Amino acid sequence: MKTKSKPWGGRFSVQTHDLAERFTASILFDHRLARHDIEGSIAHCRALAEAKVMTKEEAETMIQALKEIGQEISSGRLEFSLEQEDIHMAIEQRLIEKIGELGGKLQTARSRNDQVALDLRLFLREEINGIRERIGHLQQALVGLAKKNLDVVMPGYTHLQPAQTILLAHHLLAYYEMLDRDRARLADCFERVNVLPLGSGAIAGTNYPIDRQYLARLLGFPKITQNSLDAVSDRDFAVEFLSAASMLMMHLSRLSEELILWSSDAFGFISLPDSFCTGSSLMPQKKNPDVPELIRAKSGRVYGHLIGLLTLLKGLPLAYNRDLQEDKEAVFDAVDTTQICLEVAAVLLKGIQIHKKKMEQAAQTGFLLATDLADYLVGKGMPFRQAHQIVGGIVSHCVKSGKRLEQLSLKELQKYSNRFEKDIKGYLTVERSLDRKNQIGSTARRQVMERLKAIEVR
Amino acid sequence: MKTKSKPWGGRFSVQTHDLAERFTASILFDHRLARHDIEGSIAHCRALAEAKVMTKEEAETMIQALKEIGQEISSGRLEFSLEQEDIHMAIEQRLIEKIGELGGKLQTARSRNDQVALDLRLFLREEINGIRERIGHLQQALVGLAKKNLDVVMPGYTHLQPAQTILLAHHLLAYYEMLDRDRARLADCFERVNVLPLGSGAIAGTNYPIDRQYLARLLGFPKITQNSLDAVSDRDFAVEFLSAASMLMMHLSRLSEELILWSSDAFGFISLPDSFCTGSSLMPQKKNPDVPELIRAKSGRVYGHLIGLLTLLKGLPLAYNRDLQEDKEAVFDAVDTTQICLEVAAVLLKGIQIHKKKMEQAAQTGFLLATDLADYLVGKGMPFRQAHQIVGGIVSHCVKSGKRLEQLSLKELQKYSNRFEKDIKGYLTVERSLDRKNQIGSTARRQVMERLKAIEVR
Amino acid sequence: MKTKSKPWGGRFSVQTHDLAERFTASILFDHRLARHDIEGSIAHCRALAEAKVMTKEEAETMIQALKEIGQEISSGRLEFSLEQEDIHMAIEQRLIEKIGELGGKLQTARSRNDQVALDLRLFLREEINGIRERIGHLQQALVGLAKKNLDVVMPGYTHLQPAQTILLAHHLLAYYEMLDRDRARLADCFERVNVLPLGSGAIAGTNYPIDRQYLARLLGFPKITQNSLDAVSDRDFAVEFLSAASMLMMHLSRLSEELILWSSDAFGFISLPDSFCTGSSLMPQKKNPDVPELIRAKSGRVYGHLIGLLTLLKGLPLAYNRDLQEDKEAVFDAVDTTQICLEVAAVLLKGIQIHKKKMEQAAQTGFLLATDLADYLVGKGMPFRQAHQIVGGIVSHCVKSGKRLEQLSLKELQKYSNRFEKDIKGYLTVERSLDRKNQIGSTARRQVMERLKAIEVR
Amino acid sequence: MKTKSKPWGGRFSVQTHDLAERFTASILFDHRLARHDIEGSIAHCRALAEAKVMTKEEAETMIQALKEIGQEISSGRLEFSLEQEDIHMAIEQRLIEKIGELGGKLQTARSRNDQVALDLRLFLREEINGIRERIGHLQQALVGLAKKNLDVVMPGYTHLQPAQTILLAHHLLAYYEMLDRDRARLADCFERVNVLPLGSGAIAGTNYPIDRQYLARLLGFPKITQNSLDAVSDRDFAVEFLSAASMLMMHLSRLSEELILWSSDAFGFISLPDSFCTGSSLMPQKKNPDVPELIRAKSGRVYGHLIGLLTLLKGLPLAYNRDLQEDKEAVFDAVDTTQICLEVAAVLLKGIQIHKKKMEQAAQTGFLLATDLADYLVGKGMPFRQAHQIVGGIVSHCVKSGKRLEQLSLKELQKYSNRFEKDIKGYLTVERSLDRKNQIGSTARRQVMERLKAIEVR
Repeated sequence: MKTKSKPWGGRFSVQTHDLAERFTASILFDHRLARHDIEGSIAHCRALAEAKVMTKEEAETMIQALKEIGQEISSGRLEFSLEQEDIHMAIEQRLIEKIGELGGKLQTARSRNDQVALDLRLFLREEINGIRERIGHLQQALVGLAKKNLDVVMPGYTHLQPAQTILLAHHLLAYYEMLDRDRARLADCFERVNVLPLGSGAIAGTNYPIDRQYLARLLGFPKITQNSLDAVSDRDFAVEFLSAASMLMMHLSRLSEELILWSSDAFGFISLPDSFCTGSSLMPQKKNPDVPELIRAKSGRVYGHLIGLLTLLKGLPLAYNRDLQEDKEAVFDAVDTTQICLEVAAVLLKGIQIHKKKMEQAAQTGFLLATDLADYLVGKGMPFRQAHQIVGGIVSHCVKSGKRLEQLSLKELQKYSNRFEKDIKGYLTVERSLDRKNQIGSTARRQVMERLKAIEVR
Repeated sequence: MKTKSKPWGGRFSVQTHDLAERFTASILFDHRLARHDIEGSIAHCRALAEAKVMTKEEAETMIQALKEIGQEISSGRLEFSLEQEDIHMAIEQRLIEKIGELGGKLQTARSRNDQVALDLRLFLREEINGIRERIGHLQQALVGLAKKNLDVVMPGYTHLQPAQTILLAHHLLAYYEMLDRDRARLADCFERVNVLPLGSGAIAGTNYPIDRQYLARLLGFPKITQNSLDAVSDRDFAVEFLSAASMLMMHLSRLSEELILWSSDAFGFISLPDSFCTGSSLMPQKKNPDVPELIRAKSGRVYGHLIGLLTLLKGLPLAYNRDLQEDKEAVFDAVDTTQICLEVAAVLLKGIQIHKKKMEQAAQTGFLLATDLADYLVGKGMPFRQAHQIVGGIVSHCVKSGKRLEQLSLKELQKYSNRFEKDIKGYLTVERSLDRKNQIGSTARRQVMERLKAIEVR
Repeated sequence: MKTKSKPWGGRFSVQTHDLAERFTASILFDHRLARHDIEGSIAHCRALAEAKVMTKEEAETMIQALKEIGQEISSGRLEFSLEQEDIHMAIEQRLIEKIGELGGKLQTARSRNDQVALDLRLFLREEINGIRERIGHLQQALVGLAKKNLDVVMPGYTHLQPAQTILLAHHLLAYYEMLDRDRARLADCFERVNVLPLGSGAIAGTNYPIDRQYLARLLGFPKITQNSLDAVSDRDFAVEFLSAASMLMMHLSRLSEELILWSSDAFGFISLPDSFCTGSSLMPQKKNPDVPELIRAKSGRVYGHLIGLLTLLKGLPLAYNRDLQEDKEAVFDAVDTTQICLEVAAVLLKGIQIHKKKMEQAAQTGFLLATDLADYLVGKGMPFRQAHQIVGGIVSHCVKSGKRLEQLSLKELQKYSNRFEKDIKGYLTVERSLDRKNQIGSTARRQVMERLKAIEVR
Repeated sequence: MKTKSKPWGGRFSVQTHDLAERFTASILFDHRLARHDIEGSIAHCRALAEAKVMTKEEAETMIQALKEIGQEISSGRLEFSLEQEDIHMAIEQRLIEKIGELGGKLQTARSRNDQVALDLRLFLREEINGIRERIGHLQQALVGLAKKNLDVVMPGYTHLQPAQTILLAHHLLAYYEMLDRDRARLADCFERVNVLPLGSGAIAGTNYPIDRQYLARLLGFPKITQNSLDAVSDRDFAVEFLSAASMLMMHLSRLSEELILWSSDAFGFISLPDSFCTGSSLMPQKKNPDVPELIRAKSGRVYGHLIGLLTLLKGLPLAYNRDLQEDKEAVFDAVDTTQICLEVAAVLLKGIQIHKKKMEQAAQTGFLLATDLADYLVGKGMPFRQAHQIVGGIVSHCVKSGKRLEQLSLKELQKYSNRFEKDIKGYLTVERSLDRKNQIGSTARRQVMERLKAIEVR
């Protein structure tokens, strides 16, 4: 296509340089917006008819043709070429091929600037819902695993050192909470995505009495943008999405790290399903946790998209600049990455084997009940800070003598404090330690079950 | 202080290495949380009394002493040392100095893990409100400038090329809308900051019947965290804040870019107040827009904090890890940076001089009315795409002949299309072009005034 | 393909889950390494023969088949499938199809871990050279433009405010210097890419007497890696490349920003070639600098890849982890982005039209000679700081009275200092001001020509 | 100080706004450049004398005063105030206080633009050397640990799953190699830092016959910048430093991750020295690896500085812009962070206790010799791919029957392949497996000792 014959080519006297065409075209990736572009164009047709810019009949003809083009695209019958630059022009060109001169009316009262802003919002609106749904599935997988393993006790770690005994279910539900925040953040982001920019024209609005509220109703937007310059140059909603996606991926990277640790020989807490592992081309014994490793790694990819878009927008004067075209690949890839990671994580979790014994054994070591011992002394009237010092000394003694706290006799304990009494017997058990953590959000079995019940109701 | 005498030193037999002490201490920056730490400790005292861990009298003595320590700190009378490690231990140590052994009860049923999570949330809760207020001030400055200059017309730019005529007020209000989203995002973030983590202990909850709902009421939190592991290892709220701050800084960087462009000799649209510019040590004539330049630059700084914290959290296993200590300096600096940038931008804007004539002159060039001309032809029944081509040709002719569109005679126009008629006269004026952009969010003066009115009511 | 029948499937009893297969496969992008993989495999064959692991004849058969596979791939005859996982296994599988059981010997003494490290190094080695060459072309374009416009004078800007008169050629050569550093950085990076990792096996080396120095000679590597764990887990060379690419893109973003500014109506210093601009679908008059805008934007993309890979590597334990698979797409895209940006920038520059008059006019305003005036007083014995103050006052007077410095009479000047004498006449001209800047690296025409000459010789 | 009385205040008629002064001042952090600023000023004095801009006597007086100011600053006697803006003006002001009007000559032929570029280069030149030295110390600590533990065998991990037996010394030396690359990268960076920008003036050079080569000799620079615009706006050297520092921190984060894993209860490979750990305020038994955790976390901080500066520079037009002032805090903090992390890591490593038995035990499990077994079959003439499949089956059998490979009888092995013969006895030992890995860079003890010897010679 000669520049002259490009839809915008009236004032140009030379052809676009091949290299420039190749460099500036977005059709190779923005064809993904085809369905949304057509949805937007159909609404635009109706609004043009409403505004008497076309007749109802013209609008109907155009809408019919647009629907056909939609089918041509979804069935792969329509091929795109670099010369068409972008999906908007590709569809307009096809429309003119199909219905002739009338097709040339489609772009009345519209610019690609407000059009692409609309398309990306329609796209993200849909995808955010899909991602939120998948988060829900992963949450269900966590809840399922928690419920099935309510009896499993494990060491809780801080600094990757044994800290206190907890329920595995409680540990798993920590991720439930993180994911809940992700869903909430995406819901908030959705509110800011879900605003109609169409009708803003290139920068200033349009010369036609388009009813933007009508457009909003047609396309299901509860709100419309209030400033045309802002509407065409705003990509906050995309940055906000990438930011929410980055946090989601960060959570998945933490979960993955734990799956990798727990399935290591050293921990031995779980086995990943064979069907989610791969082997080594060299070492015949290998069974590698490739899936969580890749999830962990992919956090970097989404972080990168976030920083890429933030960089792009830094210092950009108003209003639309071509720079904004670079938003799409980042958003598309972040959508795909989060979706597949969520999906694969949910299925993987369902296939995990829990090695209850290994976890319980680990919970026996590491002096996990030391805090309980200090609290025992507090119960006998000693200030906590002093009790902490004394128990620290006892632990130090145990480390040297290779004993566990529970193995110390009352006599031995009384060397450290005369507040130790007979009732220390039976106090230092995993079950009683768990039971004592009986506040909302704590690891007592009762509390964990309460939380699971509350989650179910939602 | 010997390790032995450190509050946690019971099990240690050697001193902390000087280098390690210097490396791990956070007191040099986290003393900024002193006020919040004391606020949290006072509530904790009341909850301990309520839970019968102390008597009411003990609690009152402790609260009194904590209040005094608060005053000692705010008045600069209390000095901190590296050996105290962090603000929590510094305050506990001073408390024990003041009230003796009783002070050792403060840390009952509490870990530094839930304590610092609380402190940072209390801090951010306050600062987010402060930032939202300052955003409001900057919005007012924009509105003020817009109102004072409702008559000023300027070229609207896309791709930094003249696009269509707009009102300066409309341009300024685009930033109003961006800032409105920033406020909304910070409000959403606030909801997730505003959750009580206290009572989660180190990881598993505590061995005491602390009433967390009571704590929440005391400290004004509408919600409490639901999982203790999550509560002590969650820094989402900090990441979300840094993300919202990054977007805010991105908006300020765009505004700054425009102030720099507009105050350049080439544009000449505005003068910045002398009191906000500095000169050159070498070139006597210089008056430099240092303030917007620095605001623009500082976006990078906040982006950096965002990526820094996201990196830190990537792949971190549960629950608390010392890594999390690195959250504070990033958050503090982002708070300070956004606050001062908002403040300085608001005051700067108030002092700006608008060069109305220069803006109007610029609006005369650049064929800003070309779209109107195409729309004229559409009004005469021509499809837009064809009209666009024809006007493109007219513009091309004008570029060569050095004419403006308004200078073409009807005859000349009719060479391009016989749809041009006498009513073209008077059609191509800036004022009529503006008037035609009469949809919500467009640049028609009526619409801009509507928006200003709507803003006022809020 | 069943897992059982996968090359690594011996110990697995179930099939890989479809989702896991799709998620972990890299063949969709790493097929780009096919040529390098085959090059490496051919060398590996020779080394295996040399080590008597195969006979020379076996090696020859295998090499012949590998070459054929290379041709099948480059001609598009070989199709890949997800089940093959990656390019290494796809080629091995095809080899076995072609030469039977013998093909099963290829992977002796090799792991995919050292193999992929080799492939990526071979790839980058080639691409870095390509990028360095393209940088050279862009430098030539800058030099060409500089030479053609040696007579063009323009205002030099600091803070986007007119600072001092400079030669356009001098301004253009600033980018030459930046690009020179980019080339140097890439050359340094090349040194660290250009090291042979093959022979490191999966982690520990191999059980065969492979002569790694021989391999290095075959593949043209001057150095070999010294630690097998490091060799398979090191992606420093990729990070370093992304970092050099980020700086390169940053330079191109600065150049682009200036092209956008200079081709704006406000500056009017240059026109971009029509063939590198596009129009608007709405506004018929538009001619937009899309190419520099996109280059500017794409800096964000490459920054994103850098931060993505740095994030991925953060905290990764030794040695190879599947996370590393995520390196490739980032590197590929950064290579493609820098290459096309360099190419398009070089061609674009050649087509730029310089508006000499506009630049000269701009150089008349802005009191660009104020520093010269201060230096005049210094020449008369006044300390510079005092001279600066006096000239500041003169400028202030000129701003108010609308005069240029050159228009002030001797009498007027003498009101500010009696050191002004008759010789001030003729002192304040653009040409003399330029001539005075006669140190290496300064803007005097003589110096700029010297630099151009020095560049030519290289 | 009134604006009027500021060194650049001649053309200003109003005072700088307090808020603007506070916002733009850099003296609070750039005073760190004082020593370098004075060093540069002294050289500048000599060059001014050489160029006859001052007399030798004047220069001597000034140099003497500058030296005194240097002492006043280093001894803390000179106080700075916000009004002085930056260290350059603070020193100039003090100079004028000390030697009167003559002090006003210092800024002749110099701008703060070339001055600050010089200062930052002088600073980084010194600090890079310091960092390289500290890298050397950490390398020595690694070598020391490796030598002391040449007999320690451990499992090598890929995907955190046991892969093959290696020497601990070999594992440690992997970090040696990484650090070697860091040193090399910093050396390359040093070359680009080590270039004199002074004499570039504000943008165009200066009006004085300053001999820049003489300046370079005085200040020990082997090269001088070749373009004045570039010289004052170039911060590549700072970005390159931050990039090299990011990679260094990435390496330290990997080392830290391993120290954390290895010192966990689950691995139990090492104990960190008590003097480098801290305890918990709640849990008396805790001994936490705070130091490696913080090092790991601090990688994020340095990454953040890198992305911050890259963002700042994106799209910045030439030449100097105030944005560049934001480079310093990032560079300072990155210098401090890398220095302390290197220092603390080196001392920490020296105190590590190796649990040889635990490592050896771990090396017994995980079928680490499976690859050797496959290679045995290869030695008997079987293609590797087939051998891999067979051994995979054997491993699968062992997993089910709870046996180790070495425990299988010849008869059992022969069920899988009749190529197994008597010589399999003795083949499957850790020591022989190590010995077989006898290529350069592999884990055979002989090779590791060779590498240690080669390192020593350097």
